[in-house]
Amino acid sequence: MYESVTNFIDDTLNKSIDALKTLCRIPSVAAKNEGLEETAKVVQNMLKDIGLETEIHPTSGAPVVTGWLDVGAKRTLLFYDHYDVQPAEPFDLWDSPPFEPAIRDGRLFGRGVADNKGDTTSRIWTLKAFKETGTDLPVNIKFVVEGEEEIGSVNLPEYTEKNTDFITADGGIWEFGGAGIHGKQEAWLGLKGIFFVELEVEWLSRDVHSSAACVLPAAASRLVWAVNSLKDEASNILIEGFYDGIKPLSESELEVIGNIDMNEDELKKVFGIEEYLNGLTGDALKKAYYGDPTCNICGLTSGYQGKGSMTVLPAKASCKIDFRLVEGMHPDDIHKKLRKHLDDKGFTDVKIPYLEGYPAAKTPVDHPFVKVVEAANQRIFGDLVVHPTSPGSGPLYLFNKYVPMVSIGCGDYESKAHSPNESIVVENYRKAMHRIVAVMDEMSTW
Amino acid sequence: MYESVTNFIDDTLNKSIDALKTLCRIPSVAAKNEGLEETAKVVQNMLKDIGLETEIHPTSGAPVVTGWLDVGAKRTLLFYDHYDVQPAEPFDLWDSPPFEPAIRDGRLFGRGVADNKGDTTSRIWTLKAFKETGTDLPVNIKFVVEGEEEIGSVNLPEYTEKNTDFITADGGIWEFGGAGIHGKQEAWLGLKGIFFVELEVEWLSRDVHSSAACVLPAAASRLVWAVNSLKDEASNILIEGFYDGIKPLSESELEVIGNIDMNEDELKKVFGIEEYLNGLTGDALKKAYYGDPTCNICGLTSGYQGKGSMTVLPAKASCKIDFRLVEGMHPDDIHKKLRKHLDDKGFTDVKIPYLEGYPAAKTPVDHPFVKVVEAANQRIFGDLVVHPTSPGSGPLYLFNKYVPMVSIGCGDYESKAHSPNESIVVENYRKAMHRIVAVMDEMSTW
Repeated sequence: MYESVTNFIDDTLNKSIDALKTLCRIPSVAAKNEGLEETAKVVQNMLKDIGLETEIHPTSGAPVVTGWLDVGAKRTLLFYDHYDVQPAEPFDLWDSPPFEPAIRDGRLFGRGVADNKGDTTSRIWTLKAFKETGTDLPVNIKFVVEGEEEIGSVNLPEYTEKNTDFITADGGIWEFGGAGIHGKQEAWLGLKGIFFVELEVEWLSRDVHSSAACVLPAAASRLVWAVNSLKDEASNILIEGFYDGIKPLSESELEVIGNIDMNEDELKKVFGIEEYLNGLTGDALKKAYYGDPTCNICGLTSGYQGKGSMTVLPAKASCKIDFRLVEGMHPDDIHKKLRKHLDDKGFTDVKIPYLEGYPAAKTPVDHPFVKVVEAANQRIFGDLVVHPTSPGSGPLYLFNKYVPMVSIGCGDYESKAHSPNESIVVENYRKAMHRIVAVMDEMSTW
Repeated sequence: MYESVTNFIDDTLNKSIDALKTLCRIPSVAAKNEGLEETAKVVQNMLKDIGLETEIHPTSGAPVVTGWLDVGAKRTLLFYDHYDVQPAEPFDLWDSPPFEPAIRDGRLFGRGVADNKGDTTSRIWTLKAFKETGTDLPVNIKFVVEGEEEIGSVNLPEYTEKNTDFITADGGIWEFGGAGIHGKQEAWLGLKGIFFVELEVEWLSRDVHSSAACVLPAAASRLVWAVNSLKDEASNILIEGFYDGIKPLSESELEVIGNIDMNEDELKKVFGIEEYLNGLTGDALKKAYYGDPTCNICGLTSGYQGKGSMTVLPAKASCKIDFRLVEGMHPDDIHKKLRKHLDDKGFTDVKIPYLEGYPAAKTPVDHPFVKVVEAANQRIFGDLVVHPTSPGSGPLYLFNKYVPMVSIGCGDYESKAHSPNESIVVENYRKAMHRIVAVMDEMSTW
């Protein structure tokens, strides 16, 4: 089936890697608002090149690029990707420059190769293989490629809410995925929500010699007290009503989870830990992974951070926190509850600028499109480990009313998305293209 | 009295400022171990130039420079100074480069002009005036100039413990001082001790995508919990036994303090605050200022500190803390109690490398040498505000068994020691030289 297409993919592997490298050389860091318009145009041209009609949709932030091709097929497949990447800091921890992609030992290194320019390129190149070999597409195709996924897709609703017809499809492939530590491919059916906030305290007009701490208020202490009030030492989140309304994992999700091997011991080595949080293990570890919200400190800043001692009473202190939200929680609600919590505890001086947020969403584990992806994966990689949700976040909630989506991709457990030395295995990238062919094939006969 | 000497000081003011600028151009930052040997030699040459015998004493760190001149007088005056300075960071907040001293509106700006190269130079230049005018010195002179005051004088005991005869004198002038917000000159008779420590937590082998916070331990949360356990929201320090053995302010100290005007309202404006710590005011504010130890956060560091959001679970977190110690406390004892406190609370994972520390010391408020300095100040500036202790720290404990010391200098309340735009008023610098002449004169007749 589609041998000419898969042969083309194999024969032009180096060319497709070159296309990926070109895309990765643009440092499209959404957090810095860098290179986004430029990258949108590059992606548009890649879509045009494979024969798609395209459009660039301006938003209040980065534009959304769409592409489509209606071949009159019964089924329509939608791809959701993003052309922005995380900041590459700290630069000094990269073995090769983050925006100069380089291959070493069968891995391609560079910011964005895993998250998610590798997936974007692999999907486009698969369609190129159909076009170049003159092979009829078995399904209609739609692409939605946004540019602010790494900063919470803040402006994507401006596009999706006005284009619900476009994002309606029979099945969709979400942006990421890959091989787990066990070597098997993994698919993610849902994404947790997120609420990202910064707690800020400012008490003095300038930093002061620390001898004055005996009589002056300390911003850093205020911050520590406020942050401490959010979570106890067993990691219970203490904000009143935080857990209210949470929808527990369903029976069918629990059944799916029951069959998943968490590879606890191997992952302990990867993370360099002796125990998981609170000694979690077995079913309890799984339930936390798929079903728990979090309150995590992403950054703490105050005063002198250099070597040795500097005796200063800092004027300011701040803490970046991300809350991962599960089904039944909403960021606006958590924002209000956090504000009330701080006020009730006397921390009216602690400011909390809301940075980003959206709720969780899931595709049901028993949806027929999940079977399509499983069957396609079986043909290329073998067994697929299906996770009811990722512990990570993404704006799936904007799509899942209109299209059942499954997240698969060309990464692996060593891909280090969001970290230095992000990479993918070139062989996984090649086979991921074959899998897209198989998904289209399986979908056409569903 | 000594009119030719004070005339010389006035006539050569620009030359003495040039000498000070030369000294300040060397970035002798002890925290970075920069330019210390070089600066020690420059200071030695300045002392040789005024006819003193000199010696450079190597230590495990920066050398100690001494100079002396025995003119067979009844009394001996010792100066304690330091040739090192604080780091100049953050550089971008300086209006002119920190190591290129510049005069604007009657103030000389540059790192170290107030703390304490201005004082060092003014004292040396005063003796130069005696030499150049052929005037007999009324007292014998000793100088001890160290190079690690800003990093806790860590190696100074190596010198002082072996040279107790040298540091024995009838009176000593400590390194700093100046005009308060009220315009009156201030003298400081004591210094608090210090214990500087860094709390460090490391849990993961590398930073991880924050979605994993549902199952992985968080270094930053551990740090917040540990730091939170040290001090309650009323700033009571919760380490068991922390306040044990503290020697309260004496009756005579309380009497002296009673007469001091804290200029509460003016200083509130300087610091940009509406209230002092815990609403302190009046006598309670004074008692805290002179008599309270502190537990102050000098710096907090973890994870992402740039703009916007980055969703990371940091592998490490750390907090720099300085404890100011009052009489009756010792840094080694506090170090042990802090370790025990953390262990008792379950924070055995929190490391606390000891960075520096020494105890408090004071010269009695009724010591005759204090009267000498008061009388000398009266002749040049007018009334002197005598503080039983500074809230700041210094290694006075190494000296005060051998020499009663008083800290006066050429700074003022806007000098911004340890901060950007450090400066002195040139006119204060000139008059501070006159005051040294008066101190020597008063001392000779004591």
